[in-house]
Amino acid sequence: MSNTKVLPLLDASDAVAPCCPPLTERPFTAEEAETAARMFKALGDPVRLRLFSAVASHEGGEACVCDISDVGVSQPTVSHHLKKLKDAGLLTSERRGTWVYYRVEPSVLAAMGKLLTVAPAAA
Amino acid sequence: MSNTKVLPLLDASDAVAPCCPPLTERPFTAEEAETAARMFKALGDPVRLRLFSAVASHEGGEACVCDISDVGVSQPTVSHHLKKLKDAGLLTSERRGTWVYYRVEPSVLAAMGKLLTVAPAAA
Repeated sequence: MSNTKVLPLLDASDAVAPCCPPLTERPFTAEEAETAARMFKALGDPVRLRLFSAVASHEGGEACVCDISDVGVSQPTVSHHLKKLKDAGLLTSERRGTWVYYRVEPSVLAAMGKLLTVAPAAA
Repeated sequence: MSNTKVLPLLDASDAVAPCCPPLTERPFTAEEAETAARMFKALGDPVRLRLFSAVASHEGGEACVCDISDVGVSQPTVSHHLKKLKDAGLLTSERRGTWVYYRVEPSVLAAMGKLLTVAPAAA
């Protein structure tokens, strides 16, 4: 890829902010649960999960729709699922010329990983 | 709690086996995505997430239904969500006397955390 412009990773106005302590630390409040459930739900579909891992594992951490449509569903369905991943704050996107490029939001991924930390106190 | 019997943590016959590499490592196969999506979907509901964190953070890592029903929904709804968490392999349960006790399956939680590891190669 020749385009070296830095992507505005944290410019997703409706992205879910990283939230919440580990699930094992204390009972979640209703607000925390709403935010975190939205992220988990976005990954709770096999096609979305395949698209997400295709973007996340692609060279340079970003992928064009043209790179990741090989998941056995129609192009409109791919677009629908990519939009859901964006709405949940898991992906950002940028149009460059003909194609839209998708990139994983690492801070959100890290926040979800933190939620699933097994706290020693709960053992 | 006076009952010190060791719970058969890994005796969940229909539990989801821990699966899959980090999402950032390579594109998931259809089978991997099915398995992992089932776990994420189970946490993709605010009420389930609150129940799950209530169990996970409870003293001793287990909780009776009587301990965790304070999430603003009816008892049948609580039971329904706890069953979904069990079906996804995230909780195990055991009846003791009057009450059913729920316990988090740490290996499944750890496997989900691993999925969300941000691999350096993807940066």
